[in-house]
Amino acid sequence: MSRKSPVIIDLKFDPTTVAAALAPAFGDREKINLADPVNRERDLSGIDYAVVWKPDADLFARAPDLKVVFSGGAGVDSILSLPSLPSIPVVRFVDHSLTTRMSEWVVLQCLAHLRQTEAYRRQQDARIWRELPQPEARDVTVGIMGLGVLGQDSARKLKMIGFDVIGWSRTKKAIDGVETFGAAELKAFLTRTDILVGLLPLTSETTGIFNAELFGGLRRGGALGNPVFINAGRGKSQVEADLIAALQTGILGGASLDVFETEPLSADSPLWTLGNVILTPHAAAASDERALFRHVEAQVARLEAGEPLQHVVDRGVGY
Amino acid sequence: MSRKSPVIIDLKFDPTTVAAALAPAFGDREKINLADPVNRERDLSGIDYAVVWKPDADLFARAPDLKVVFSGGAGVDSILSLPSLPSIPVVRFVDHSLTTRMSEWVVLQCLAHLRQTEAYRRQQDARIWRELPQPEARDVTVGIMGLGVLGQDSARKLKMIGFDVIGWSRTKKAIDGVETFGAAELKAFLTRTDILVGLLPLTSETTGIFNAELFGGLRRGGALGNPVFINAGRGKSQVEADLIAALQTGILGGASLDVFETEPLSADSPLWTLGNVILTPHAAAASDERALFRHVEAQVARLEAGEPLQHVVDRGVGY
Ligand SMILES: NC(=O)c1ccc[n+]([C@@H]2O[C@H](COP(=O)([O-])OP(=O)(O)OC[C@H]3O[C@@H](n4cnc5c(N)ncnc54)[C@H](OP(=O)(O)O)[C@@H]3O)[C@@H](O)[C@H]2O)c1
Ligand SMILES: NC(=O)c1ccc[n+]([C@@H]2O[C@H](COP(=O)([O-])OP(=O)(O)OC[C@H]3O[C@@H](n4cnc5c(N)ncnc54)[C@H](OP(=O)(O)O)[C@@H]3O)[C@@H](O)[C@H]2O)c1
Repeated sequence: MSRKSPVIIDLKFDPTTVAAALAPAFGDREKINLADPVNRERDLSGIDYAVVWKPDADLFARAPDLKVVFSGGAGVDSILSLPSLPSIPVVRFVDHSLTTRMSEWVVLQCLAHLRQTEAYRRQQDARIWRELPQPEARDVTVGIMGLGVLGQDSARKLKMIGFDVIGWSRTKKAIDGVETFGAAELKAFLTRTDILVGLLPLTSETTGIFNAELFGGLRRGGALGNPVFINAGRGKSQVEADLIAALQTGILGGASLDVFETEPLSADSPLWTLGNVILTPHAAAASDERALFRHVEAQVARLEAGEPLQHVVDRGVGY
Repeated sequence: MSRKSPVIIDLKFDPTTVAAALAPAFGDREKINLADPVNRERDLSGIDYAVVWKPDADLFARAPDLKVVFSGGAGVDSILSLPSLPSIPVVRFVDHSLTTRMSEWVVLQCLAHLRQTEAYRRQQDARIWRELPQPEARDVTVGIMGLGVLGQDSARKLKMIGFDVIGWSRTKKAIDGVETFGAAELKAFLTRTDILVGLLPLTSETTGIFNAELFGGLRRGGALGNPVFINAGRGKSQVEADLIAALQTGILGGASLDVFETEPLSADSPLWTLGNVILTPHAAAASDERALFRHVEAQVARLEAGEPLQHVVDRGVGY
């Protein structure tokens, strides 16, 4: 049996959590954690694998023989835009726990808008006992943009809660009980949508896609009154100036945002205080480091057994 | 074919909504809406059916020949305690829309506590960007007290979202993927429970069941830290003084309450302002009047076709 290539770890996550998750991972394979000062001058030539998130600028120069780059996150926009990224497979992080956490967040946000949690919170603060008119989930259409691993799981769970669910993706999908639309059918999709959920990767095509024109195309006068915008994909897909204007003018009746054009969100953004807007700090679905290393181990095992890698990014389309 | 008995309507809901829902209901059967002044002196003898919620004190004296009383709500505690209630079948309101709405509310509240919406809301108000440590649903056990129509639907949906779900009922149930406990196993059930969901009817046995001793029996140090109490059954099942003390001392880490010992909740109750407590004004699952009349029509049709009524209350056990 041939020598096992070490694996380079360059993850700009919490270093303590990474170290703790790394300790039991990768069996007898050597792990080179670049967060560890002893590895500062380490020769990285001849090494096949790197697991990276916001890697050092010189990583790919120092490790010229990499065969695969593993992304530490589900989104790879920040990795594909690294200037020195070599032309080798990039594998993104797909994991059951991450998917489940995202669906928790999406279902929570859709239910919060359906069940008017912000209005009830204001009433509670004012000690007001007043029942509000209440549509049920079946009266509300959730339109999901992006029907990948995350979008499909959210669609299934929203449906099961009772929402009417429709979806849009580049290549049209077939999902039980969910009406789907292809890339060219965006307009028809939007006019049906009361709650828009963004679960798109950031690519040249999806940059700025959530803009004034798109918000203006959503269904008006549905069961919730004004449409609601929810985004947990990537912040640079939303034009925040347009979003803020739409919320201020009532083109949108509310929003739940986990991602922002610039993160952390600037303290002077109007988004913090706009009514019926719920913010979370890019926390919808955290990458769990133990799950990440399990996923990398599984892909390395496949590769070394002569099987094809899974979840390889299509660099032509950008995700 | 014999003459169809009229149906008496005495529902202390919103009179406009009742009238609108009643207009198209019951086909050619006569409807006697007691909210209508023309019916004030109407002779109600010889009439078989009444649909009631908080009926007039003299209703049963005025209508001595009733064969069935239909409850306008899912809970029948207020009807069974009517002093003049005759010894005839009482049918409670069971409806898909009501069940679905309750599960929306229960799933929303469980996710709100799991995903720390109150802590994030405080951070948002202070413009603080900080990701909080986040367990996932599978790390948290939701224990449901009451596995009837509502409890079982909530159990199934919470499970599908990813929670670990267990349940307790008078007679032990078998539900796929849900560990269940019988009446005598309450203690074992509580020590497993991180989020307690009350979906019990109000009976002599369930009055005051959510008290200091019960709160003290819940699991401590689970994934959420302190246990959470959620109640959408009936308010008189909770001892509010004990609940407030448990929230103030950290025996409970939070609560979501739709029902209260006295409704509307008094403006001076400490519950309005306690941290991590979410209140709704008995709005978890409103009875939809159109659905109510459809359900009554269906039961009347069964009875007149010689089939047994469904959802008849067992007056011995009180629900
Ligand atoms: N906020 C967070 O905590 C968090 C956590 C994880 C991930 N994310 C974000 O979520 C994104 C989605 O993750 P995923 O795992 O579901 O990705 P995925 O499996 O690659 O799915 C992406 C989906 O978007 C669609 N899509 C891409 N470009 C499109 C375009 N130009 N027009 C229409 N549809 C387009 C794809 O269409 P096809 O089906 O036709 O390919 C696919 O349905 C990630 O890229 C990441 O940015 C955020
Ligand atoms: N907040 C709202 O908006 C709202 C709306 C609708 C209903 N509700 C309340 O929700 C309650 C439950 O509704 P449902 O339709 O699910 O009722 P259900 O079908 O009659 O179920 C009641 C459940 O509670 C259990 N139970 C009753 N007494 C018990 C006891 N002493 N010990 C242990 N378990 C006991 C029953 O056990 P068994 O299975 O052994 O019979 C059953 O599982 C209603 O009674 C009503 O008060 C509230």
